[in-house]
Amino acid sequence: MLKPNIETFLGCEADFEQARIVLFGAPFDSTTSYRPGTRFASRIMRGESYGLETYSPYQDLDMEDAAVFDSGDLELSFGDTEKALADIEARASEILSANKLPFLIGGEHLVSLGAIRAAVKKYPDLHILHFDAHTDLRDEYLGARLSHASVIRRAWDLVGDDRIWQLGIRSGMREEFMWAREHTHLHKFDLKGLPEALAALQGKPVYFTIDLDVMDPSVFPGTGTPEYGGVSFGELMAAAVQGCGLNVVACDMVELSPGLDQSGASTAAALKLLREMLLKLEEPFIRGPKIV
Amino acid sequence: MLKPNIETFLGCEADFEQARIVLFGAPFDSTTSYRPGTRFASRIMRGESYGLETYSPYQDLDMEDAAVFDSGDLELSFGDTEKALADIEARASEILSANKLPFLIGGEHLVSLGAIRAAVKKYPDLHILHFDAHTDLRDEYLGARLSHASVIRRAWDLVGDDRIWQLGIRSGMREEFMWAREHTHLHKFDLKGLPEALAALQGKPVYFTIDLDVMDPSVFPGTGTPEYGGVSFGELMAAAVQGCGLNVVACDMVELSPGLDQSGASTAAALKLLREMLLKLEEPFIRGPKIV
Amino acid sequence: MLKPNIETFLGCEADFEQARIVLFGAPFDSTTSYRPGTRFASRIMRGESYGLETYSPYQDLDMEDAAVFDSGDLELSFGDTEKALADIEARASEILSANKLPFLIGGEHLVSLGAIRAAVKKYPDLHILHFDAHTDLRDEYLGARLSHASVIRRAWDLVGDDRIWQLGIRSGMREEFMWAREHTHLHKFDLKGLPEALAALQGKPVYFTIDLDVMDPSVFPGTGTPEYGGVSFGELMAAAVQGCGLNVVACDMVELSPGLDQSGASTAAALKLLREMLLKLEEPFIRGPKIV
Amino acid sequence: MLKPNIETFLGCEADFEQARIVLFGAPFDSTTSYRPGTRFASRIMRGESYGLETYSPYQDLDMEDAAVFDSGDLELSFGDTEKALADIEARASEILSANKLPFLIGGEHLVSLGAIRAAVKKYPDLHILHFDAHTDLRDEYLGARLSHASVIRRAWDLVGDDRIWQLGIRSGMREEFMWAREHTHLHKFDLKGLPEALAALQGKPVYFTIDLDVMDPSVFPGTGTPEYGGVSFGELMAAAVQGCGLNVVACDMVELSPGLDQSGASTAAALKLLREMLLKLEEPFIRGPKIV
Amino acid sequence: MLKPNIETFLGCEADFEQARIVLFGAPFDSTTSYRPGTRFASRIMRGESYGLETYSPYQDLDMEDAAVFDSGDLELSFGDTEKALADIEARASEILSANKLPFLIGGEHLVSLGAIRAAVKKYPDLHILHFDAHTDLRDEYLGARLSHASVIRRAWDLVGDDRIWQLGIRSGMREEFMWAREHTHLHKFDLKGLPEALAALQGKPVYFTIDLDVMDPSVFPGTGTPEYGGVSFGELMAAAVQGCGLNVVACDMVELSPGLDQSGASTAAALKLLREMLLKLEEPFIRGPKIV
Amino acid sequence: MLKPNIETFLGCEADFEQARIVLFGAPFDSTTSYRPGTRFASRIMRGESYGLETYSPYQDLDMEDAAVFDSGDLELSFGDTEKALADIEARASEILSANKLPFLIGGEHLVSLGAIRAAVKKYPDLHILHFDAHTDLRDEYLGARLSHASVIRRAWDLVGDDRIWQLGIRSGMREEFMWAREHTHLHKFDLKGLPEALAALQGKPVYFTIDLDVMDPSVFPGTGTPEYGGVSFGELMAAAVQGCGLNVVACDMVELSPGLDQSGASTAAALKLLREMLLKLEEPFIRGPKIV
Repeated sequence: MLKPNIETFLGCEADFEQARIVLFGAPFDSTTSYRPGTRFASRIMRGESYGLETYSPYQDLDMEDAAVFDSGDLELSFGDTEKALADIEARASEILSANKLPFLIGGEHLVSLGAIRAAVKKYPDLHILHFDAHTDLRDEYLGARLSHASVIRRAWDLVGDDRIWQLGIRSGMREEFMWAREHTHLHKFDLKGLPEALAALQGKPVYFTIDLDVMDPSVFPGTGTPEYGGVSFGELMAAAVQGCGLNVVACDMVELSPGLDQSGASTAAALKLLREMLLKLEEPFIRGPKIV
Repeated sequence: MLKPNIETFLGCEADFEQARIVLFGAPFDSTTSYRPGTRFASRIMRGESYGLETYSPYQDLDMEDAAVFDSGDLELSFGDTEKALADIEARASEILSANKLPFLIGGEHLVSLGAIRAAVKKYPDLHILHFDAHTDLRDEYLGARLSHASVIRRAWDLVGDDRIWQLGIRSGMREEFMWAREHTHLHKFDLKGLPEALAALQGKPVYFTIDLDVMDPSVFPGTGTPEYGGVSFGELMAAAVQGCGLNVVACDMVELSPGLDQSGASTAAALKLLREMLLKLEEPFIRGPKIV
Repeated sequence: MLKPNIETFLGCEADFEQARIVLFGAPFDSTTSYRPGTRFASRIMRGESYGLETYSPYQDLDMEDAAVFDSGDLELSFGDTEKALADIEARASEILSANKLPFLIGGEHLVSLGAIRAAVKKYPDLHILHFDAHTDLRDEYLGARLSHASVIRRAWDLVGDDRIWQLGIRSGMREEFMWAREHTHLHKFDLKGLPEALAALQGKPVYFTIDLDVMDPSVFPGTGTPEYGGVSFGELMAAAVQGCGLNVVACDMVELSPGLDQSGASTAAALKLLREMLLKLEEPFIRGPKIV
Repeated sequence: MLKPNIETFLGCEADFEQARIVLFGAPFDSTTSYRPGTRFASRIMRGESYGLETYSPYQDLDMEDAAVFDSGDLELSFGDTEKALADIEARASEILSANKLPFLIGGEHLVSLGAIRAAVKKYPDLHILHFDAHTDLRDEYLGARLSHASVIRRAWDLVGDDRIWQLGIRSGMREEFMWAREHTHLHKFDLKGLPEALAALQGKPVYFTIDLDVMDPSVFPGTGTPEYGGVSFGELMAAAVQGCGLNVVACDMVELSPGLDQSGASTAAALKLLREMLLKLEEPFIRGPKIV
Repeated sequence: MLKPNIETFLGCEADFEQARIVLFGAPFDSTTSYRPGTRFASRIMRGESYGLETYSPYQDLDMEDAAVFDSGDLELSFGDTEKALADIEARASEILSANKLPFLIGGEHLVSLGAIRAAVKKYPDLHILHFDAHTDLRDEYLGARLSHASVIRRAWDLVGDDRIWQLGIRSGMREEFMWAREHTHLHKFDLKGLPEALAALQGKPVYFTIDLDVMDPSVFPGTGTPEYGGVSFGELMAAAVQGCGLNVVACDMVELSPGLDQSGASTAAALKLLREMLLKLEEPFIRGPKIV
Repeated sequence: MLKPNIETFLGCEADFEQARIVLFGAPFDSTTSYRPGTRFASRIMRGESYGLETYSPYQDLDMEDAAVFDSGDLELSFGDTEKALADIEARASEILSANKLPFLIGGEHLVSLGAIRAAVKKYPDLHILHFDAHTDLRDEYLGARLSHASVIRRAWDLVGDDRIWQLGIRSGMREEFMWAREHTHLHKFDLKGLPEALAALQGKPVYFTIDLDVMDPSVFPGTGTPEYGGVSFGELMAAAVQGCGLNVVACDMVELSPGLDQSGASTAAALKLLREMLLKLEEPFIRGPKIV
């Protein structure tokens, strides 16, 4: 008897029970002030993921040995931001309750707030590792306190001073940079502050959020607010893999906007990064044959 | 001394005091459930309007003889729907208070609700003439009562039964079509019900709202929810000009999504329709030389 | 417990057992001589189908009352044409054996041959109703006998003279048109020959194949070999619904090429046509409430 | 020994000596005020022409029986308009001197002026048949007398009153329409004036110029100044074939802008029109077998 | 009373009287031999500039403290190159007469010649700092002496030997490289010759012209003649800021072609570069609060 | 008398007799499993090559002094892979028989197999230098042994162990990497193994095959299977020129997919690489004047 048509990210073939990591998409971009379109990221990534191999020659690990479940996309209410965040929080909480790691695929950066809310409830000592081109520290934006430009500020409301490490930042208002000096660990322009962050975050429960626009637009044009002067793919991949060596309790990847990625290359970048992060998170549990 | 760079729709060169019609853009698409992008319509239309002539050989009238002011785009809060509607209502009210006709350029269809709220306050007997492919009569959509799929239902909350004439409708839920039989005058598929609507609306204060997707996608692909089986440009132009012969107290044109209009043709269609509507609305006041 | 991510065409929610119609995609375009890309059609159509309503105001029927199962896409070997056809035939045969109607979504037109082979085995008296811009009657093309340009000629190898009705044809070699005079019922340019075809096909087992390029490129630009002078969407929809009133034992829809459809409108046309055809095929079994 | 790579329009395989018609491309768009890109039309048309059949089922004639030579594209100086026109005139004159018919592929509409200059020298009694959306009768445009918006006015400088028949016109300045009443035969909106024009032009030497934007943008989006309300492909094809039944001494087809034609459909329209026109012009000389 | 719709580059809010720098756009690309489209650069840059912050974390300076006026775009005659250059020269002269710095946004590179003509009249000792991928030293191109490929040669006609410093050059005819050895300071491939140029230009009145294609096409695909092997954004930004520390009396930025920049990233690069250059030019006058 | 329209790659103006190198295109992509489109590469490259100069400032050599003949594109049968390979082999053999160097432009990577078959017949000691992102060592792919994913494995069938040097490889199945350890010289991630390869290949007859996706997608997005982490254009250009200093008896460049290259930059990269390779191969025979 023929079976229904199941679409998942590359090699994420486990079921919920088996999985240690649970992916879910949050197709939401209603507060995006510039060019919307990140709502399509998770769906397009699934469809394109068959263009990637399951094996990583970088880590000598294979997704076929990993235990990841893709729970699909949430159906979110556009235009009702608080409701969308509540739905994201509920999904993340459900995954955390089952002692699994939620891996959220945005959507715009604000979606992270839903997952952070869930994570901070389970881990009151939550710290945040944040890769981004933008500060995202506005207290409000055009009168709204829930906005992609405020997401880290809202996260700070939950975790407080000295818990947030921001790397790669190269855009923001003067006031945001000034505010950051008092409240977060902000490293400008690149990821060179990573060793310092890794040392500080050792052993802490970490929420790891990657705004893909931390990459230079030459590498990753498929995002709504391109900001030149960013890092290369290789730099981001290496840093993200290192970050996944921490005690990561939840993580996300946001701001791929497929409509701006005519060649599909940005989607391919996001997928390769996702594979490497999943493999690193799964590494302790993988006992596959090694080439070397 | 050099002057600043003023951008207006084609031939809309009057200032506020002189004008009888005041245009404004509402770049908002946060509740769009499918493909966003209508937020760019008013800006792109201004930029492209220099590709159109001011003279209409159809009506033998020229925009150079009209008195229209373009007040630019509102700066709306994405993700906070109620606030955006309040800002639209405020602008429309300001124009109505000065005894001018507000002409709103969307944005998604929900923006009409802001202008309708303003109009119904001034004209409690307001009637609505609605051209669209979609019923827009859902009571809620994914849990939200303020949505592009609910705008005419919300308008009905304000004006009540038998005040709304819907033409061109060819998509909706079964429940919406059933509901419409009790509460609105809904004409399916085309604009052939127009004479009946015109007769009924004679002398009433009319809000005229055109969702451009009433046109067939072969004519107007640049919209987020293309629905085949629609009317031609010529049919819409003729009907819209007739509608503008009513006692129109406010009107709008919504749902152009320029990013889906690679050739620019849909933008050109919207602009030509806008020119013809403005000329018809201004016709009683124009005393320019006639060719014929 | 969270469930896996199932993607289906709009409203095709039945399982295999329940269903009377079984959809499947054949993502294959290896013999396309001009611009490939139809391999993406079924996947894109699934993804976009949530932009369409389940209810048809044309037939006053709703997909929610239909029993259709979407069995997903075949994984076909590119570059090995005979093997791909064998896989398509196997899937169609499996569905026919269960006394269900296979509905194939292409892919290039050659994929039809796989399903026709299956159908003719079960129904030796098979007739074919063919809507297309092109004759598709070449005996070979660049040395290959299996080609999108030869599919109806290969079908004729199976069913023989006077069994094939071709409508809308407006492109081909002189030799093809001459050959057709002896072997098929070919109606040039439009669908006006439909009543004659319907009369002749009454009661026969019919394979119904629609090459979507039978529509005019103004209506349906998203296809690899656009040929002007075609029919409108309304004409095709009406004719396709009439065709589905025959004793259709299998059918298909081919040649949507999503990469050429920047606005998404052609995909929307294919989906709306699919909904109307499915509803007509299901009509005898649907007992839903009627509005009228 | 391997031969060089020759690219021609579909089926234009004659050499110069054999040919009765000589095609040439004029890749020039320097005066285009809105969106340039027509310079690419002739090259793209050649490359895409292999997607079309040589046989026309409309006229039951085949390009394989015609004698047309494609002399390739001129290499024109961008930014020096007078020099570009001189080069076009020289090529057209060379063809006319050999008693062949020059068929010019634009480029923007101004290129026609070069060929008209050549034609009027050989045929002082030259008349012009002009299909277009735009009047093209400005005496100057932004200070320039040589502009795509002035090409018919400049042609009038050469041929004078009552020699120019303009059909399909639906855009221009009021002054242009008024001027036309004194100097040309201008038919607004459609091609219904054709029988009158054909009667008047019978026996005269005719230059036939087709601005492809005479078609509606729903049919032909691939042009820089789309103007809704135009004719269908079928209407244009029929009228163009009728025009080619006159004593045409030179002709052209201009204003295809391939960059605006993402799907390639507009290019396909231009090519099919070109085939039908060439076949009609060649019809008196073709003795191929007829199907009917 | 509602005000008209003023569009300016990011943060350029001064009026003419207040400003020290005056921006203006020259939307002209008529001599572009390859792919036109730079005419749209200034308009698109204005529209997109709201995606950039006014604050620079690189220089710790904010456009809100600068005094820049945007005088909008010139309306230039396409196809009449000499007239277009005269209009550009007039605008630049008007700004220079008011003792302000003209900052020209192209358009194709030839537009620089208009501004250089104005600058050399006021500063007979004018030197030129030129960043580009191409030599631009042809004496003529396809018979035309005024061409984007000749602009620096024409500038040399005005300033003579040893006044022009060319950096980043990696494309040209052999003859151009040979000619440069006698007449200009040409540094191939990269910007490493900058310290030498800065030393030589110290204290001189400098016209600074940046052809954005000096960047590698991986960084900046949105230009008509992409030439691989160029500099990174960071390299260009650093060098441009250093160049703005000279005695710059006029400058420009040319050859962004937005239609080739599907993702908008190239436009974002141009805008960020513009911000950094304006801030450096304004630095001596800015007394805003510093973070560090 | 006017001549036919000959299209060649930049500066490839020799005839077959004169030439030492013969280019030919193989427009074939039927086995491409992901996104087809490489069939258009050679045609688009020819058309775009006029945007490049004939002179290389890197090597101080000019294509005008080289002797290269462009024999145009083969007309290959889509969907019949073995037949297409036979046609490619025949063309390459014809060129090799005349003691000229065949330079093949793909198409997908499988086309190389045809040329390798020809080369190994003439040079039984053939070695292969292979730049690629992918191993291409699958023994079969979806049941097919002739596939773009198997091309180097099929080449190994012909040349055997230790004859193939693979550089830049960063994607493949685990099994492929393991297999390579026994049978080929595979260098992961970059081109740093080149000196070792050059030393080993000195004096051997070498087939040099470049899959352009060896470049990073930031540099070269115009390819169907983008794989991040690749080399820069400068790195590839330098390595390719070095490779051309070997005893190259045949070579190719494959996998440009122009439809994914909206800006045209990837095509420009391929063309510049082609120019530099041709110049290096021709260097021993060029006696043009040198600048330095």
